Amino acid sequence: MQVTIGKVLGLGGALLGATVAAAACENKAEQKPGAAQSGALGASQSLKQLMEARGLTEADVEAALKTYVPGGKHDEYMIFASGGHSGQVLVLGVPSMRLLKVIAVFAPEPWQGYGYGGESDKVLAGGDQNGKRIGWADVHHPNLSETKGDYDGKFLFVNDKANGRVAVIDLGDFNTKQIVANPLVGSDHGGAFVDPNTEYVIETSQYPVPLGRDYAPITEYKEKYRGVAMFWKFDREKGRIDPAQSFAVELPPYTQDLADAGKLVSDGWVFINSFNTEMAVGGTLEGKPPIESGASKNDMDYLHILDWRKAERLVKDGKATTIKGMRVLPMKVAADEGALALVGEPKSPHGCDVTPDGTGIVVGGKLDTHATVYEFSKIKSLIDQKKFEGKDEYGIPILAFKESIRGQVEIGLGPLHTVFDDKGFAYTSVFIESVVAKWSMKDLKVTEKLSVHYNIGHIMAAEGDTVSPDGKYVVAMNKMSMDRFTKVGPLFPQNFQLVDTTGEQMRILVDAPIGIGEPHYSQMIKIDKLAPHAAYKPGENPYTGKVDPHAVLSPKDARIVRNGTTVDVYMTVIRSHFVPDRIEVDEGDTVNLHMTSLESAEDQVHGFALNMYDVNVSLEPGKHENISFKADVPGVFPFFCTEFCSALHLEMAGYFLVKPKGG
Amino acid sequence: MQVTIGKVLGLGGALLGATVAAAACENKAEQKPGAAQSGALGASQSLKQLMEARGLTEADVEAALKTYVPGGKHDEYMIFASGGHSGQVLVLGVPSMRLLKVIAVFAPEPWQGYGYGGESDKVLAGGDQNGKRIGWADVHHPNLSETKGDYDGKFLFVNDKANGRVAVIDLGDFNTKQIVANPLVGSDHGGAFVDPNTEYVIETSQYPVPLGRDYAPITEYKEKYRGVAMFWKFDREKGRIDPAQSFAVELPPYTQDLADAGKLVSDGWVFINSFNTEMAVGGTLEGKPPIESGASKNDMDYLHILDWRKAERLVKDGKATTIKGMRVLPMKVAADEGALALVGEPKSPHGCDVTPDGTGIVVGGKLDTHATVYEFSKIKSLIDQKKFEGKDEYGIPILAFKESIRGQVEIGLGPLHTVFDDKGFAYTSVFIESVVAKWSMKDLKVTEKLSVHYNIGHIMAAEGDTVSPDGKYVVAMNKMSMDRFTKVGPLFPQNFQLVDTTGEQMRILVDAPIGIGEPHYSQMIKIDKLAPHAAYKPGENPYTGKVDPHAVLSPKDARIVRNGTTVDVYMTVIRSHFVPDRIEVDEGDTVNLHMTSLESAEDQVHGFALNMYDVNVSLEPGKHENISFKADVPGVFPFFCTEFCSALHLEMAGYFLVKPKGG
Repeated sequence: MQVTIGKVLGLGGALLGATVAAAACENKAEQKPGAAQSGALGASQSLKQLMEARGLTEADVEAALKTYVPGGKHDEYMIFASGGHSGQVLVLGVPSMRLLKVIAVFAPEPWQGYGYGGESDKVLAGGDQNGKRIGWADVHHPNLSETKGDYDGKFLFVNDKANGRVAVIDLGDFNTKQIVANPLVGSDHGGAFVDPNTEYVIETSQYPVPLGRDYAPITEYKEKYRGVAMFWKFDREKGRIDPAQSFAVELPPYTQDLADAGKLVSDGWVFINSFNTEMAVGGTLEGKPPIESGASKNDMDYLHILDWRKAERLVKDGKATTIKGMRVLPMKVAADEGALALVGEPKSPHGCDVTPDGTGIVVGGKLDTHATVYEFSKIKSLIDQKKFEGKDEYGIPILAFKESIRGQVEIGLGPLHTVFDDKGFAYTSVFIESVVAKWSMKDLKVTEKLSVHYNIGHIMAAEGDTVSPDGKYVVAMNKMSMDRFTKVGPLFPQNFQLVDTTGEQMRILVDAPIGIGEPHYSQMIKIDKLAPHAAYKPGENPYTGKVDPHAVLSPKDARIVRNGTTVDVYMTVIRSHFVPDRIEVDEGDTVNLHMTSLESAEDQVHGFALNMYDVNVSLEPGKHENISFKADVPGVFPFFCTEFCSALHLEMAGYFLVKPKGG
Repeated sequence: MQVTIGKVLGLGGALLGATVAAAACENKAEQKPGAAQSGALGASQSLKQLMEARGLTEADVEAALKTYVPGGKHDEYMIFASGGHSGQVLVLGVPSMRLLKVIAVFAPEPWQGYGYGGESDKVLAGGDQNGKRIGWADVHHPNLSETKGDYDGKFLFVNDKANGRVAVIDLGDFNTKQIVANPLVGSDHGGAFVDPNTEYVIETSQYPVPLGRDYAPITEYKEKYRGVAMFWKFDREKGRIDPAQSFAVELPPYTQDLADAGKLVSDGWVFINSFNTEMAVGGTLEGKPPIESGASKNDMDYLHILDWRKAERLVKDGKATTIKGMRVLPMKVAADEGALALVGEPKSPHGCDVTPDGTGIVVGGKLDTHATVYEFSKIKSLIDQKKFEGKDEYGIPILAFKESIRGQVEIGLGPLHTVFDDKGFAYTSVFIESVVAKWSMKDLKVTEKLSVHYNIGHIMAAEGDTVSPDGKYVVAMNKMSMDRFTKVGPLFPQNFQLVDTTGEQMRILVDAPIGIGEPHYSQMIKIDKLAPHAAYKPGENPYTGKVDPHAVLSPKDARIVRNGTTVDVYMTVIRSHFVPDRIEVDEGDTVNLHMTSLESAEDQVHGFALNMYDVNVSLEPGKHENISFKADVPGVFPFFCTEFCSALHLEMAGYFLVKPKGG
């Protein structure tokens, strides 16, 4: 593929051509003064030598120049990628594909002081399930907040497939502000998705369980196991999900998979594919087929079509029951009221992507060779007419497949996900075949296939999930990298390949190894839509957005206050010392540290680390932190600044002394 | 700086020059056939347009071509960087500066299944201090294992400044195999360093405490607080540190800082700088000066010179005392026996780097303008002659500064660390001035300064800490990045700048943001020295290197065995199912999961995640894992594969059912 790139662009013979031409008129060049004179031949030789020395083709040169971001210049787009079972979110720049930040979300991360004794512990506690702390997640689908169907750069939402949770990240400070735990199910996959105005953050379940997760034998799977579509109400003003205003819709145990929200004409609807309408539950030890074959018997599974505005109304009208404190609209009610319908989708479906204009829904098939494009207007019309070809065993109406689709695109082996550009093309990831298939939405024909390396899972496009994609780039998110990078042991990095879609043919610009986590989906936003702040207000608690009541805004206010066996330490932090820098308590005391950074300059960050007590926070300019712990180990424990803040950073230290009982 | 780069190299006018030349002889070019004809002007135009469109200078083009690694081609060097208070190690490729892997070391990391219920939990437990789990670290100085003073590519050692610990990473599988906890002190900084044959991994303390960390009032600092140099005995055969064969040398409470091991002529010696011979202990709340000023009063602190072979002999001869189970050679014994001496070092010293030939030791000064080069032969001679200018208050002999040095290099404001190339040059990082200073080791004169962005801490060179540095590259590890990258909130990435040192002038090739952790030091090794394996032997436990006694090498051997309230599950894992895939236990049972991956192909990785139980392991080909937990929450909990392993990956799942008591 790379071989032909230069030719296609017309840049083709550029560098070598120029060299030859320059050499050919060597004498003439010698007559010219200045740079051209000295540069002409010798220079071209140098360039050629450099290409030869580094084994670069002309296509490589072009790719290098299209991806290189000079020092001090900025990337054009930002990618927010799920970190998979790293539990975090990765932020990359485009076109450089440099990792700009790993945002700590579900797993503790000490550099950011996330989960090591400070205020962020409360965020992690929000994700407790069954009263237990869960220290990781399997993050699948990040979704940027939207206004009128366009990314607005304010918030990012991600789901935890492994433990049924959703997190809210504020793009003001790129910090996780909230984790909510789904009380009904144990895993999700279709999520986090938002509707075009981010009224709700939508999370649909994956592996069915009895809602509320209470025990029921596997033999009662059909009767008692269920899926759900969760609608987490988002309060944009507060920047938080409001669980009390949220609701769920019960779904049959068909192993719901991916989901997407309608937009424009289909705004108010949610579409969810599924892959185990066979309701296979394995039994490999007992000689039964594994789920992988049990769930692959039917030629069709079901796309779920949900009128969420109607569901919302039904819930408001009191039609929901309550399970584990969450309002759940029974699927029978949803079906009977015309809020829920099904339509067939071939075979072992995957991916569910609404087109930018909202008129179509594209679904892949892991064991199919097509991408199926459903026509929303047809679906809507069938539902409005109550024209069903039958009902499933749970009483949910089924639409006729052929009457619901716009058509099918002959893609190849294992089409998964589809994204869109600004010129009427769609790009589908094809896992088994390891290609990106570009096809025209006009005539549903594949126009080009690009080999990627290897086994592409998700695919992502610049502003691709909005009502107005940018085109320009897609990213192939490949699951295997085999020989692409220097080996780093048995656990290989994923491989993001940045693809240039501006030319007549797609071209891979660069391979970007992802050496942390296993990203699933990602989104790419134009840089100018983001407006992060580089400092907090003096004394701000990032989790309330307000000046903390314990803030210490001047070293004069620094103090140590004992009240019985509780010791409150009010501390200031500024280059390069802590006030106080000596704290002595008694064994068994409860210690509350309240510390405020008095810095205001950008990038002037301190940290506070305390030996042996697993306490570590990051103190960006202005930030206030509260830390609470029991002084249960007597002895002498230094504390120090963890960020290289000044020439005398190492001297920014102090002592925490715990006097032993009876000592 | 960038502006002049092109000119200096002679590549200078290359591209534009070629363009001009080509344009100048347009008519002539037109007479030529083929590629040159079509390429000459049009091509150069395209290139020029691309440069213009992306705002690239000629220097940028050169840098892009020197750093771009085409898809499928590999980097030339690998960097192992400390992750600072992320607690991890970062692996980057050079020249692409791509992040190839984050190695989990001190903090749990779920993608690698590190610390979430599997065998790796035992590694983390090795780092417990005072019987408490510590979930993070401040990783400072990675050191690759050496043979005859050269990196051998087998192991990597890193220290935890925050909690006094050292970790061993095996570069066979890039996994952390061991963490040892220093029982004497609470923090270290001079570490981890190895001697030229990796007999010992050396860790020297930072903030003094009473050895063993027992309580003593701060007023008894001089009498009771101490530093240590720990010598962790490394057993290369086992690939583990042997604490029983390890020992420490007591040091005065001077706040020891960085350390380095001698090599060649100075093999058998260790050099440690220090920065608080004033023994300031702060007291900011009490109106006393902070440590930053208290520790900066003296014009000289002390470089510690330790004959560790002699110390080892003294310990073997029974001259050590035992503190908290560790043999500690008292400093008085070390001093009296000629194993420990001091020599002055100006001012607020930092950095301590032995020259490749082992003859010199370079020390910077945070408040000094010089780098001081000590001459090992002079130091050795003074010690051999017992020619001291006095003793410190702890009875340690002091050598005369002027008689111990080769000379001083006039560097600039705040020289820190120094690295070396293959041509007799040294490169010193200068924090306050934000430059790399290149100087000749022959005449101790600075030949060039390169501005870096911004506030460089450590600096690192290709194979730079060996007896034979490669030259070619140095990396400026900058602490601040301010305007260099798109903003990602108040916590900025660090900035690694790759510097080309092959030309007559140093040139920055690329800015690499480090979006996770705050790296301190790093080392760069030639790729061909590494030979990681891409799979385990069938059934191998990576932490014993042997086939696990619980390995399940065939689905036929999969089974569930109940013994009272203990349930042992023997499970196989292969595309795309688990055997068994249904496990039912009673509430309160102890569950032991033993699982073996039956895969053998490279990059064919599975994971095992269990809903709600905080259990998650990574199963690379062949790997065996043992997981143990109490089934204390009744209900239905799916488990699934976390790595996208095949088209039917999502179907790779099963159910764990916990029947409630009395249910």
